[in-house]
Amino acid sequence: MENQALILKKMIMSLLEEKKYPSLRDILVTMNPSDIAGVFLELEQERIPLLFRLLPKELAAETFVEMEPEHQQMLIQGFSDKELKEVVDELYLDDAVDLIEEMPANVVRRILAQADPDTRKSINELLRYPENSAGSIMTTEYVGLRPQMTVGESILRIRRTGLDKETIYTCYVTQNRTLVGLVSVKDLLLAEDDDTPIEDLMETNVISVSTLTDQEEVARMFAKYNFLAIPVVDTDNRMIGIVTFDDAMDVMEEEATEDIEIMSGMSPSEKTYSRARVWDLFKQRIPWLLIMMVSASFTSMIITSFESALAAQAALTAFIPMLMGTGGNSGSQSSVTIIRALSLDELEFRDLPMVIWKEIRTAVCCGIVLSIACFLKIILLENLAFGNDVPVLVAVVVSVTMALTVLVAKTVGCILPMGAKKLGLDPAVMASPFISTIVDALSLLVYFAIASMLLPM
Amino acid sequence: MENQALILKKMIMSLLEEKKYPSLRDILVTMNPSDIAGVFLELEQERIPLLFRLLPKELAAETFVEMEPEHQQMLIQGFSDKELKEVVDELYLDDAVDLIEEMPANVVRRILAQADPDTRKSINELLRYPENSAGSIMTTEYVGLRPQMTVGESILRIRRTGLDKETIYTCYVTQNRTLVGLVSVKDLLLAEDDDTPIEDLMETNVISVSTLTDQEEVARMFAKYNFLAIPVVDTDNRMIGIVTFDDAMDVMEEEATEDIEIMSGMSPSEKTYSRARVWDLFKQRIPWLLIMMVSASFTSMIITSFESALAAQAALTAFIPMLMGTGGNSGSQSSVTIIRALSLDELEFRDLPMVIWKEIRTAVCCGIVLSIACFLKIILLENLAFGNDVPVLVAVVVSVTMALTVLVAKTVGCILPMGAKKLGLDPAVMASPFISTIVDALSLLVYFAIASMLLPM
Repeated sequence: MENQALILKKMIMSLLEEKKYPSLRDILVTMNPSDIAGVFLELEQERIPLLFRLLPKELAAETFVEMEPEHQQMLIQGFSDKELKEVVDELYLDDAVDLIEEMPANVVRRILAQADPDTRKSINELLRYPENSAGSIMTTEYVGLRPQMTVGESILRIRRTGLDKETIYTCYVTQNRTLVGLVSVKDLLLAEDDDTPIEDLMETNVISVSTLTDQEEVARMFAKYNFLAIPVVDTDNRMIGIVTFDDAMDVMEEEATEDIEIMSGMSPSEKTYSRARVWDLFKQRIPWLLIMMVSASFTSMIITSFESALAAQAALTAFIPMLMGTGGNSGSQSSVTIIRALSLDELEFRDLPMVIWKEIRTAVCCGIVLSIACFLKIILLENLAFGNDVPVLVAVVVSVTMALTVLVAKTVGCILPMGAKKLGLDPAVMASPFISTIVDALSLLVYFAIASMLLPM
Repeated sequence: MENQALILKKMIMSLLEEKKYPSLRDILVTMNPSDIAGVFLELEQERIPLLFRLLPKELAAETFVEMEPEHQQMLIQGFSDKELKEVVDELYLDDAVDLIEEMPANVVRRILAQADPDTRKSINELLRYPENSAGSIMTTEYVGLRPQMTVGESILRIRRTGLDKETIYTCYVTQNRTLVGLVSVKDLLLAEDDDTPIEDLMETNVISVSTLTDQEEVARMFAKYNFLAIPVVDTDNRMIGIVTFDDAMDVMEEEATEDIEIMSGMSPSEKTYSRARVWDLFKQRIPWLLIMMVSASFTSMIITSFESALAAQAALTAFIPMLMGTGGNSGSQSSVTIIRALSLDELEFRDLPMVIWKEIRTAVCCGIVLSIACFLKIILLENLAFGNDVPVLVAVVVSVTMALTVLVAKTVGCILPMGAKKLGLDPAVMASPFISTIVDALSLLVYFAIASMLLPM
């Protein structure tokens, strides 16, 4: 893939040099919008407007949607009003809204000025929905039918009005603007009689979302029900728009990235890595690093307060990182598993007892195995092979602490995310960095408690 | 949502008690297959066959597909041969293959015995594709057209054969079994003349995958191009089948879960949390815990070899967890960011210099801020507020180590995943637990090196 992209880039560059525009155009029209946008990404910025103007109108608009905001802005600034109008006219409403959300105010004013009044009104309405809501990702361009229409009339309507609709394959049946059913083009085409009224054919058990439903929940419904589109209704069940599966896929990808970022102690960002500047990365990463550094003061304080014990039993110090590391890893395994299950709706708060009981049993198994392995490692590897002389009693203290730490870590690791969910917080915050800080402190306390019971100090 | 599910369950249970089967049937037919399967999950197992038999044939098959493997197996074992045949006949090929892959051998034999010979042959062919390949998730049931057919003939063909196809909305045009183009039902319906031959209408620039393409790559192509279906061809570009967007969505979700699991030091598992037994969780988690515990021996060894230095400067010990923690967190921020970008195809190996340069600059910014914060924290918080007396020189050593550790951690954190990708390994393996172990050891070495330069020992 990589090589083909390079070959393509070279080919386009040399055609550009030689000003062979008709051939360039011939090449570009065979390509997918998303691939053309990919090629643009590789070119110097000055070249893009020229190439863009070679594209036929519809392909130009489709390519425009796939481009990076920086390039979109540059193109718009170079467009004449007429060119801008041509692109804006070809955009689907939801794409126009996405574009406007990314552009600076002066560009937005130019775009809105070029849109026709109806479009402008719809755009302004869509812009009013809160970020990450179904309303913010929906389009109002869908095929609407009436219950009394026949199959034949419906197909005719689709043929007449379908061109501007993002999907024609699911049509929504409304009466007085209220959503009463849906019918698929498959059902229409396979219907045996063209005179069948839609109300006899339509599915009346329609699953819909509200304009304010969180986009993550909308995406999950797509994954669950395999819909091509999902209708968006207001509080009175009046049809407002649809969300299509391609937007749901984007949301799924975004939300997984966001979860992963939060789980690794970063603020979520919408920029791709290549587009993010150093300053963006810094802002995304420094808050948690600072918080976690300061909260590590607890561990420092615990160690300081046991300084004399550590001085009496110097061997204890060497095992602190291992115990803390294993505790952190055990805890994050549990928390991450639970966070993912919560975000896929596989678990709910009422499952908490089942979860705790399962984690405790898993922790006991892991703890026993780790504790035996740890004891053998100290005696066989460190003492016999490397010639350290860790006292057997210290090995016992370390191994027992290991088992208890795993138990504590896994219990804390499963309870915190479920608690966060119950409190309406994002469970992903309760992942490794957060859990580690808590488990670090707890494991040290366990360590020193057991040490002071078993060892002479 | 939760409450509605409970209400529904109670309603169904009481109707079952009172043997009001017609009403039960009326309720069930208004529900989505996926929701019916969800209700079954809440019921005692003995109830399921009775409820299942109430469902009309097609809904029964659709619900069956959405059920958990345990329930599927139980139902099949209770089915008469006739009932089994009815369900198997209604399944799409790819769903039948998924089912067979989950069932024990004796159940598989019964299923195959009930399938008609053609279906059996297709199932056996599909079973032969490697796990996680496009071949293993595709279906061979698609609408095929010929280039010479007219729009009218094509629509007729769809109406005649569409019933058994998983999607009719994208039709594939083949000549001598070779894929030459595709045409959407939208294009067919919106075509102005019913006599237009398909070859004039079809898109000839078709993006396809091979039967052996990794399912993750297939899913990424869906996200990129917004396809409803993607054709699967063999090495001679002969059309074999299609993958539909709903399967791609499932793959996206699975692959994100798998990445998250691997990044948190777990072997990936295909079972949901509720279905996983303690033994499954144990097997998934113990290998990495053991590996990381043993590799923590390095840190123990380093600490042991600097035992006398630590004895001379007791204050140094208390900062070990903070330094290792910050190093681990910084490293995992970088590695996780890079891993995600790699798995979304936003980065390639040739971007390595750009990545390293960006990470180094980010690390310098984070390092400077953390190191100043750390110095102030020790002097103002620990010494002045808590009355510890950490020598200023120790505070300097800790702060300088902090900055260098962040630099090392972020550099290692970005190089390792990119290197893994280049070597054909899964970059996700190079996430937090792995990075932490390396960064722990490196940060200790830096710590003691700087300490022995600046402090009297």
